[in-house]
Amino acid sequence: MTTPSRSADALRAWSIEPAPYGAAPGRIIVKAGRTTVLCTASIEESVPPWMKGQGKGWVTAEYNMLPGSTAPRKGRERGPKIDGRTTEIQRLIGRSLRAIVNLEALGERSVAIDCDVLEADGGTRTASITGAYVALVQALRSTPSFSGGEPLPVSDSIAAVSVGMVDGRPTLDLDYAQDFAAAVDMNVVMTGAGRYVELQGTGEEATFDAEQLAAMLALAHLGIAELTALQRNVLA
Amino acid sequence: MTTPSRSADALRAWSIEPAPYGAAPGRIIVKAGRTTVLCTASIEESVPPWMKGQGKGWVTAEYNMLPGSTAPRKGRERGPKIDGRTTEIQRLIGRSLRAIVNLEALGERSVAIDCDVLEADGGTRTASITGAYVALVQALRSTPSFSGGEPLPVSDSIAAVSVGMVDGRPTLDLDYAQDFAAAVDMNVVMTGAGRYVELQGTGEEATFDAEQLAAMLALAHLGIAELTALQRNVLA
Amino acid sequence: MTTPSRSADALRAWSIEPAPYGAAPGRIIVKAGRTTVLCTASIEESVPPWMKGQGKGWVTAEYNMLPGSTAPRKGRERGPKIDGRTTEIQRLIGRSLRAIVNLEALGERSVAIDCDVLEADGGTRTASITGAYVALVQALRSTPSFSGGEPLPVSDSIAAVSVGMVDGRPTLDLDYAQDFAAAVDMNVVMTGAGRYVELQGTGEEATFDAEQLAAMLALAHLGIAELTALQRNVLA
Amino acid sequence: MTTPSRSADALRAWSIEPAPYGAAPGRIIVKAGRTTVLCTASIEESVPPWMKGQGKGWVTAEYNMLPGSTAPRKGRERGPKIDGRTTEIQRLIGRSLRAIVNLEALGERSVAIDCDVLEADGGTRTASITGAYVALVQALRSTPSFSGGEPLPVSDSIAAVSVGMVDGRPTLDLDYAQDFAAAVDMNVVMTGAGRYVELQGTGEEATFDAEQLAAMLALAHLGIAELTALQRNVLA
Amino acid sequence: MTTPSRSADALRAWSIEPAPYGAAPGRIIVKAGRTTVLCTASIEESVPPWMKGQGKGWVTAEYNMLPGSTAPRKGRERGPKIDGRTTEIQRLIGRSLRAIVNLEALGERSVAIDCDVLEADGGTRTASITGAYVALVQALRSTPSFSGGEPLPVSDSIAAVSVGMVDGRPTLDLDYAQDFAAAVDMNVVMTGAGRYVELQGTGEEATFDAEQLAAMLALAHLGIAELTALQRNVLA
Amino acid sequence: MTTPSRSADALRAWSIEPAPYGAAPGRIIVKAGRTTVLCTASIEESVPPWMKGQGKGWVTAEYNMLPGSTAPRKGRERGPKIDGRTTEIQRLIGRSLRAIVNLEALGERSVAIDCDVLEADGGTRTASITGAYVALVQALRSTPSFSGGEPLPVSDSIAAVSVGMVDGRPTLDLDYAQDFAAAVDMNVVMTGAGRYVELQGTGEEATFDAEQLAAMLALAHLGIAELTALQRNVLA
Repeated sequence: MTTPSRSADALRAWSIEPAPYGAAPGRIIVKAGRTTVLCTASIEESVPPWMKGQGKGWVTAEYNMLPGSTAPRKGRERGPKIDGRTTEIQRLIGRSLRAIVNLEALGERSVAIDCDVLEADGGTRTASITGAYVALVQALRSTPSFSGGEPLPVSDSIAAVSVGMVDGRPTLDLDYAQDFAAAVDMNVVMTGAGRYVELQGTGEEATFDAEQLAAMLALAHLGIAELTALQRNVLA
Repeated sequence: MTTPSRSADALRAWSIEPAPYGAAPGRIIVKAGRTTVLCTASIEESVPPWMKGQGKGWVTAEYNMLPGSTAPRKGRERGPKIDGRTTEIQRLIGRSLRAIVNLEALGERSVAIDCDVLEADGGTRTASITGAYVALVQALRSTPSFSGGEPLPVSDSIAAVSVGMVDGRPTLDLDYAQDFAAAVDMNVVMTGAGRYVELQGTGEEATFDAEQLAAMLALAHLGIAELTALQRNVLA
Repeated sequence: MTTPSRSADALRAWSIEPAPYGAAPGRIIVKAGRTTVLCTASIEESVPPWMKGQGKGWVTAEYNMLPGSTAPRKGRERGPKIDGRTTEIQRLIGRSLRAIVNLEALGERSVAIDCDVLEADGGTRTASITGAYVALVQALRSTPSFSGGEPLPVSDSIAAVSVGMVDGRPTLDLDYAQDFAAAVDMNVVMTGAGRYVELQGTGEEATFDAEQLAAMLALAHLGIAELTALQRNVLA
Repeated sequence: MTTPSRSADALRAWSIEPAPYGAAPGRIIVKAGRTTVLCTASIEESVPPWMKGQGKGWVTAEYNMLPGSTAPRKGRERGPKIDGRTTEIQRLIGRSLRAIVNLEALGERSVAIDCDVLEADGGTRTASITGAYVALVQALRSTPSFSGGEPLPVSDSIAAVSVGMVDGRPTLDLDYAQDFAAAVDMNVVMTGAGRYVELQGTGEEATFDAEQLAAMLALAHLGIAELTALQRNVLA
Repeated sequence: MTTPSRSADALRAWSIEPAPYGAAPGRIIVKAGRTTVLCTASIEESVPPWMKGQGKGWVTAEYNMLPGSTAPRKGRERGPKIDGRTTEIQRLIGRSLRAIVNLEALGERSVAIDCDVLEADGGTRTASITGAYVALVQALRSTPSFSGGEPLPVSDSIAAVSVGMVDGRPTLDLDYAQDFAAAVDMNVVMTGAGRYVELQGTGEEATFDAEQLAAMLALAHLGIAELTALQRNVLA
Repeated sequence: MTTPSRSADALRAWSIEPAPYGAAPGRIIVKAGRTTVLCTASIEESVPPWMKGQGKGWVTAEYNMLPGSTAPRKGRERGPKIDGRTTEIQRLIGRSLRAIVNLEALGERSVAIDCDVLEADGGTRTASITGAYVALVQALRSTPSFSGGEPLPVSDSIAAVSVGMVDGRPTLDLDYAQDFAAAVDMNVVMTGAGRYVELQGTGEEATFDAEQLAAMLALAHLGIAELTALQRNVLA
């Protein structure tokens, strides 16, 4: 069921707010319609073994859906069997953030991003990226090296949104029902300056042509611009 | 650092509130001082294979700490290596709830409890049990079989609190710093009627005598009575 | 080191040939420059449990690099630790093929695609998809249900190629050295009719704009057209 | 089937004897009725990585039931799936022993306790703890640092016994049939001096009151006193 | 250190005796010098899924060394990492017993053999096979289908012994020190009638010629004959 | 179905040829009838941790069947469950090669052998060993330390062949159908000089006597001599 009052080129209702609990220096709750994600960012004064001694930092991310985030309940990911979808999403989040972090300026420290989905109604990966950027900035601001007013080791903001072909129409920011019905599903990650970081379009047992691609990308630009403004407000 | 203004026989500040997100029929957020746990309860119309055909239901529980619940960050429990502490706690939660659920009256369905720690400052297992009882009742009330006004398949309420010997003094509801300093640590699970369900006392490289045991149990009775009143308010 | 004589808009030397060994009904060896992949397709007269009774078939894929395909040797993927990159690639291969297979017409049977990399010099996932399509058709032709001249349950051909921004220039069909040097890397999966199936573009700690995207997509169209012709020759 | 001639406040027939085989410096066979456990203690001149350089030692324990210890056969615990009950028991054994070992006086070495159940008829964890103490002392006596007559780094003896409510009556040292029938089951670990180390009481889908608790603890004191005497005889 | 008084063509001191504990219907303790193995045999009235409906039975075996069986302590085999040596040995034990069990006459039931090494001083796999045969017969005799006097579903007895080239001399029944020093190590499994079941000879970074092979096989025949007599005594 | 024209004392058609792809310094394709194996040998300038500082090298081997090597498709070995047969075979390959490599002369480096079965029709382990020897020599010749004309750290050649009792007749080099029908199956690994390295004979729910053993060994000698000649030609 798509929300009847929303037009195909409008975002769902989004909010990004500080999380009222947690111990990580960066922690926010991002909402996109009924999708809710807790994004935390923790700083560690070390890097993975394979990066030691290069004077560079690292950003990594983990993604997880809590069992109560869906009904029926989603089984918890434990044990040796790792879900492929989870792997894909958390790799995407980490890669996206690294595109706008200056790893040399970060120095030999790591930022660990955790995106835990509290309620899932479509677009959890784009909400995660959009929220994770805010948590990352919060955490960096709390780091002694960057809290004195020097510039953060971040070159631009980053946000993400989904677009797709639903009932033959280019549609922005799909909820679960729209995503399920979509013939094409595309996730777009862009900087605040409007440059692409990631583009992942998938025909779900379907295909799409160049014109449809152009229409979807245009919608994504609109959505990202709104989300970028929202991020600026929160961080101001 | 213990909170200076709290006396050794007082609970921390507790609250139990409905969670503003999530899809599970039962979902609450319980706070005990700075410890915060999201407890959800989901109903499945089936039982584990080894219980089939007996006409009885089952209650199971999982416990998890989110990575951002502590600083420094707690590594996420994934992969084949399962933490012994986690196993102990989730077994305790499930066993405690089964003590007050009438499994025959529940019928061939399962209640899955999930306790995800959002912030950890000691007493996460007792907060989990105390909150899980409320989420369980919420979930049962939403079940068609029990939503028409018939009695729920629950014989009493249940709550839990920790007590310990800190600096030689019997102390109620230990936070992390107190737990770390305690020579003896005891978790007490009791019904609303004041009967024991579980009693787990541990000398941490230390021992305790019968008199100390009696003093700690007396404090636990006081704490449980307060938590039982809090639960009744939420469920009223 | 890129091959000096190849221009930025030219494919590497490609070939697709029947594999001279193996027992699977579909089996080919695809080469793209020094990248070599053995693609086999096996038919099973059953579907995964969650698809039973729907009258539809399924296509699944696995991807693997043999240890001797690189120097130094690549550790064999065994044991509980599954590599995220492998997961992503095999999900991409399976999804791509399902986009052009008519699962209803396939009936309740599965096609298992295996892409084993014999030598790796960049572009192993695009070579795998391009070769897997040929092995899939071979295997379907050998199936009694489809070997009598009826149409195969396939709506179009499918092929894949990589494009990227190397030294600031849009470049087609990246080898390992080019891929390593690329600021942007994009994998494009298209049908023989020129429609998109998958589009995965990634800024490697970099970003790209709309103009660069357009230039890369134009190169991809050229490359896919050539590969489609090669596939038709092999299957004729 | 409970042994008819045993009164509710009597121990089963217990024995602790040196094991006639094995290579570990501490090795005994403990019997409690038909429950038989092989307890070995091995010394390693190192500590776990997280304890290095602190000048302290460590005591760890593993618990295991041999497949032939029950009929029908108990599946061997191998592979990634670790049983929660096993985890709980071996953590209890290790924690109990550490309560009476002076880890500083032990020095930077580890004692590894292994409790392998040869026949299981209830009370395997209490037999394990009671036997493990004896094996621990044997092993320490064989260590060059402690074999010259200096005091062992052990502050007291330790023993364990179960008590429970069976058919409404407080009962000591439950065998399997009694344990199965018990409404309440409690494991008590005490020192030779009569101080508590661990207290784990569980209502099995039941609850218990303060009076029942007191009666069970009184029985436990009696039982522990007898077991302590038995340990002294063996070690004399 | 080889036992000085034993000649190269003599067995170590062997014994096979009923185990004084355990619940499995077949259970013996076999000793070969200082090597001690507990062999149990359990009967299950079912067969593995892949054998159902064929009217045949199955014999399977597991092998395990207890941590205290060696000094220094042998790490317990748990978790996902399975030791290759263990796998080899338990496959050998199972295969050897199946060679002399009439699986059709056994009917649709399974015999599970467990060989748990209590003390290891070389030759644990040959002691396991020799003892497992006795436990198997014990267990079959306890099975209602075979306990009435009908012939057991066993065509012959089976025993195993090691031989090797030690200091250039063919040697029977190697203990650990001899095994370590041996250039060639061979395990021979034979029936009571003197026919080969398994022959596994290995040059340990060495090789052997036909003459040495003949000398070792002659010794194995002698050893097996003695062990067969010992088995008959126990089972008489 | 055995190939009708081959007599029981003749090898199948064998070939050993350089692999036309791959990056490992040693890489050959060995064929024995319809069995085809890719054997690669990679050199690493390090040894396993437990061998460091001894001045000696190591040879290790892995064995794997590709899914398309059989029909129906063989499931890929991934995940925590490791197949016992695979473990046995790769241990055999490594042990066999180490018998003819002078590990001291090799120096502190490792040779990693990978045997990937491209088509399986019986005798994959013997083809693997026979081919791996050739790949090993190729790889050593490419190593700077040995490429200048000094002798390789190899004391002899090594080859392997299977023999068995099929339809009551001693038979050489069993294909899959013969292996399935064989009452006895024996793998023989020998040096070029005719000395035994490994002898593994198994009665498949059957037994064999000394005369049959002698006949099978005689056939193995013949087969190994032919394979040794083939290896010399390839390496000349």
